[in-house]
Amino acid sequence: MKFGFGVDLGGTTVKLAYFDEAGTMLDKWEIPTNTAENGKYILPDIAAAVIKYMEEKKISREDIIGVGIGVPGAVNNKGIVAGCDNLGWGHFSVKDALEPLLDMPVVAGNDATVAALGECWKGGGQGYKSVVLVTLGTGVGGGIIIDGKPVHGFSGAAGEIGHIIIHPDGLTCPCGQRGCFEQYASTLALMHQTEQAIVAHPDSLLARLAQTEGVSYPLPFLATEQGCPVAAALIDRFCRDLAIGIDSLVHVLDPRHVVLAGAITSQGDLLLDPLLSHLHTDIPVTLAAHYEHAGVIGAARLFKGKDV
Amino acid sequence: MKFGFGVDLGGTTVKLAYFDEAGTMLDKWEIPTNTAENGKYILPDIAAAVIKYMEEKKISREDIIGVGIGVPGAVNNKGIVAGCDNLGWGHFSVKDALEPLLDMPVVAGNDATVAALGECWKGGGQGYKSVVLVTLGTGVGGGIIIDGKPVHGFSGAAGEIGHIIIHPDGLTCPCGQRGCFEQYASTLALMHQTEQAIVAHPDSLLARLAQTEGVSYPLPFLATEQGCPVAAALIDRFCRDLAIGIDSLVHVLDPRHVVLAGAITSQGDLLLDPLLSHLHTDIPVTLAAHYEHAGVIGAARLFKGKDV
Repeated sequence: MKFGFGVDLGGTTVKLAYFDEAGTMLDKWEIPTNTAENGKYILPDIAAAVIKYMEEKKISREDIIGVGIGVPGAVNNKGIVAGCDNLGWGHFSVKDALEPLLDMPVVAGNDATVAALGECWKGGGQGYKSVVLVTLGTGVGGGIIIDGKPVHGFSGAAGEIGHIIIHPDGLTCPCGQRGCFEQYASTLALMHQTEQAIVAHPDSLLARLAQTEGVSYPLPFLATEQGCPVAAALIDRFCRDLAIGIDSLVHVLDPRHVVLAGAITSQGDLLLDPLLSHLHTDIPVTLAAHYEHAGVIGAARLFKGKDV
Repeated sequence: MKFGFGVDLGGTTVKLAYFDEAGTMLDKWEIPTNTAENGKYILPDIAAAVIKYMEEKKISREDIIGVGIGVPGAVNNKGIVAGCDNLGWGHFSVKDALEPLLDMPVVAGNDATVAALGECWKGGGQGYKSVVLVTLGTGVGGGIIIDGKPVHGFSGAAGEIGHIIIHPDGLTCPCGQRGCFEQYASTLALMHQTEQAIVAHPDSLLARLAQTEGVSYPLPFLATEQGCPVAAALIDRFCRDLAIGIDSLVHVLDPRHVVLAGAITSQGDLLLDPLLSHLHTDIPVTLAAHYEHAGVIGAARLFKGKDV
């Protein structure tokens, strides 16, 4: 049996995990992402963490197939990153930069695409060869697997579904467009919507809960559970916008399955039930089986080969 | 040198063409599409037309590689049609039905996907391996080529971009959604928009031209050329909606090139200039080189093998 490492590189935290080649996660840990000096310490920190782990566990290099890494930005099919703004990274090959530090093979991919691979391998998309994964985080991203192969796009930017235009006369997005999907369906958007609802309905249960719990994106779900109609209407509108984007994606890509990932999916049926009520598509739309770990699992899948 | 036939099956007309294997169109003709009795005569009519042509030209079966055919409906990667409403067709294999009638190999694909293949082979997408073709006809369709391979989707319905939702509170679509792309960006939509503008502005040049020329989708382009501000505003709004759909597609698929096809592209820069002014994407968006023949050229590419 051979082994490898999966790395999920985020803007604040790097998740690392040790896998056997069958995809069983044997260990996992995290290190902070040091974005100082245009992110020059990030790959050395990751390499040091992997090497330290191998030394502590007395793992021999001969037993390691390689390291897979998902990064938060456009990555083309040669592993070239086209720039990760929130890491300070420009245009370079993660593979070429990380391999000499580790002295083992490295495969890099976009984080959402990698998470989609993870879900096809071990999660909600298991056994399916055409899957779209929608990540609902601070922004909205997407990973696309078609016929078992990740879709990178010409410049590595395929799956930038946060910038599908769903309300052309709506909110301005930093990208320059108006009405982008992620202005409506991200956790940040839900926070803003919650703040607005609290101002508009100061006597609502949502507003009262905000005083004790603070404003967060889980708050409207909590208030809905406790019977607040203002919060329920807010979640319903949020899920309607989410459905608009998902229905559009399904018409473009005709996947077998849509998987939702990101911390917001921890809300379970409180999210899924109103979403399903607004969706027109008949194909399965489910929550990621490993919403926290799809990234490292998919990264582990990378060192096994990219196709699922 | 070997030869083959490309067939572009439409709701009213079947276009046929005879090619050499290098992709040179040697001859072309049309036959009507007989949709009587759930389209049972369509494939026999096509087979008879091909066989008659071979007899007249004294072409031997040994010189023929095969027949490629694009059909107006979902076709999966095994050539199974999932139903073509406007032909009366249900679920069956075009390949299995047409091969015995011709006694030669048949390859079938979705018409827009096939046209995208044609443009990658001999047209505006030549040399590019990631192309999205947008067909602007009575409806709006799309053909997607990624990494040189046509994307069929799980059920053969990938590229149904006419049902991207661009105005969620807008016009109702027969598909059950509201605000579908093709309710705004098809020739039928443009006709409706023209009729509305004539009623709202009975003294406009557009309205006066309508009395002599009749209402058609080219009319607002003609009126714009002659200086009518009502028509120019109408075309500008039409192109803004077209841009919304194209920008969304580019974010999902990150193609190298977007090609527009369909009869409306005969308007040339009258369409392209206002469209480009509304697009956010930087990638090339051009008109199909063979807007009338991309279908038969792509169908000819099918018998050569699907990858470009």
